[in-house]
Amino acid sequence: MIKKIAVGIDIGGTNTVYGFIDSSGRVIEYVEIPTRGNQPIDDLLSRLDSRIKLFFKKNISFELLGIGIGAPNGNHFTGKIQSPPNLSWGDVDIVTIFKENFNCKTILTNDANAAALGEKKFGAAKNMNDFVVITLGTGLGSGIFSGGKLLYGHDGFAGEMGHMCIDPEGRKCNCGNIGCLESYASATGIKKTIINLFEENPKDAFLQNINSGKINGLTIDKAFDSGNLFAKEIYDYTGIQLGRGLAQAANLLSPEAFIFYGGFSNAGKRLLKPAQISMDNYLLSGHVGNISLLQSALPKGQAGILGAASLILTEN
Amino acid sequence: MIKKIAVGIDIGGTNTVYGFIDSSGRVIEYVEIPTRGNQPIDDLLSRLDSRIKLFFKKNISFELLGIGIGAPNGNHFTGKIQSPPNLSWGDVDIVTIFKENFNCKTILTNDANAAALGEKKFGAAKNMNDFVVITLGTGLGSGIFSGGKLLYGHDGFAGEMGHMCIDPEGRKCNCGNIGCLESYASATGIKKTIINLFEENPKDAFLQNINSGKINGLTIDKAFDSGNLFAKEIYDYTGIQLGRGLAQAANLLSPEAFIFYGGFSNAGKRLLKPAQISMDNYLLSGHVGNISLLQSALPKGQAGILGAASLILTEN
Repeated sequence: MIKKIAVGIDIGGTNTVYGFIDSSGRVIEYVEIPTRGNQPIDDLLSRLDSRIKLFFKKNISFELLGIGIGAPNGNHFTGKIQSPPNLSWGDVDIVTIFKENFNCKTILTNDANAAALGEKKFGAAKNMNDFVVITLGTGLGSGIFSGGKLLYGHDGFAGEMGHMCIDPEGRKCNCGNIGCLESYASATGIKKTIINLFEENPKDAFLQNINSGKINGLTIDKAFDSGNLFAKEIYDYTGIQLGRGLAQAANLLSPEAFIFYGGFSNAGKRLLKPAQISMDNYLLSGHVGNISLLQSALPKGQAGILGAASLILTEN
Repeated sequence: MIKKIAVGIDIGGTNTVYGFIDSSGRVIEYVEIPTRGNQPIDDLLSRLDSRIKLFFKKNISFELLGIGIGAPNGNHFTGKIQSPPNLSWGDVDIVTIFKENFNCKTILTNDANAAALGEKKFGAAKNMNDFVVITLGTGLGSGIFSGGKLLYGHDGFAGEMGHMCIDPEGRKCNCGNIGCLESYASATGIKKTIINLFEENPKDAFLQNINSGKINGLTIDKAFDSGNLFAKEIYDYTGIQLGRGLAQAANLLSPEAFIFYGGFSNAGKRLLKPAQISMDNYLLSGHVGNISLLQSALPKGQAGILGAASLILTEN
């Protein structure tokens, strides 16, 4: 019997992940390829196109039901990726392109919304109606469920929690504004924190090491676990700032939980413990103790493709 | 023919308003009585009870369909008013009490949600699916619509926008936290601003006057219109802080508009113009110019009772 399956694609700033997923959420095959955001979009599209078609040629017991896509600045309403940060593509009418190439239903959402859909359908939020998934990568994204529905806002751009101001006298963000949460709680933000610490302590070997190269959460985690005080300070400081942003969102949305996904979420309790204390400190007293901070319950990197695929699977 | 109508009740810190409302939103009768929040809740309940029953005795062409109630800390899920601020009642199981007394459907929500429902069903938000109603009274409340639905959060306490922190080094709020939006943009907040200005300028006659008595928006409006620079400074400062809070909420929710209701919203452009400039300053660039600040389009004091009544009318 031929089984209808969805393709979920999660386009990221560095890598793009795609998977072939059945209605139970089983990932039949899962591939990561470089996005090459400095090339024209056609470069990524042609690689995806040939690989997806090859899969169905090889696996004749499967049929393509549709394609769900999560992408930075992906707009659910317009079907376009609109000038994504860190990618040189400008506006891309990706839904039209995929529909023409594959002749199947194609639905787009942004990357954080895809992760939120994945957690709702198959992950930590299966039994929740009110939660926020936060992606901690180069930036900080968020996908918001309230009353069982993903929030899009009037133009599809709800969920820009990374650009909530947590300190009007704070850091300059890449977006041009001041004190955005993302300028503290993301790889970009942590890098800034490391630079500040390194300037104050230029002779410390650990700070020298993590300041010189690409920021790497694993190195900080290991140092933290072996009792390095600067590693602790990095996560404490980041957690305090993160907690402020969480409290702002929580006072507005009253979610059951925040669920963390993406590179820096692997820090787990090292980061989430100070974040919880800080959040509770800024919450209205009635909320204190009622909002959990959780890590994604899905295999690494799969919330995005599962959520993107669920856009197709849920409708069928 | 007997016409079925709803009663909408809006319980406030000082006054309680109730009205008899038909399915088209026509307010057949509309009464304001003192809440007397320092008395036991039975005092207010017995007055409402006798007056509502008297209305239906006198007007035999109307039949009671149900009662909708908006109240501070009114919880839609539990049907209880939970320790409302400025009222000495503790927890009140108001839905059960009304159901027993009137033998009709009774639905509770909080006061800001009632105002938001009123604007959606009969007011400025009739054609909007994504908007936030902000009540500017003693405190600052908010009712949020997203995707055409009122947001309640997991426990019914979503919409506490007044307690979003806009300045971690800012004013102490009555809730115990620091820098809450309400401690700037509300009667309570404006009073603090006036005290600060008066301390710096103790000889100014206008500041002496507004500092000595109960805060009165109309007095400030008149002074503003006659060119008083302190009145301008009060609204400019309040508007700047308000705009910061609006930007935080807007980055998260991407609403089409914020709609202002309640005492201080009568300041209109005097307050909303600096608020708009400040909000746009803190928004992600894609949102700038896309979010309107509007005043309630309903007769003074009626959004709350219309929205409370709509809880009954919408279901029938």
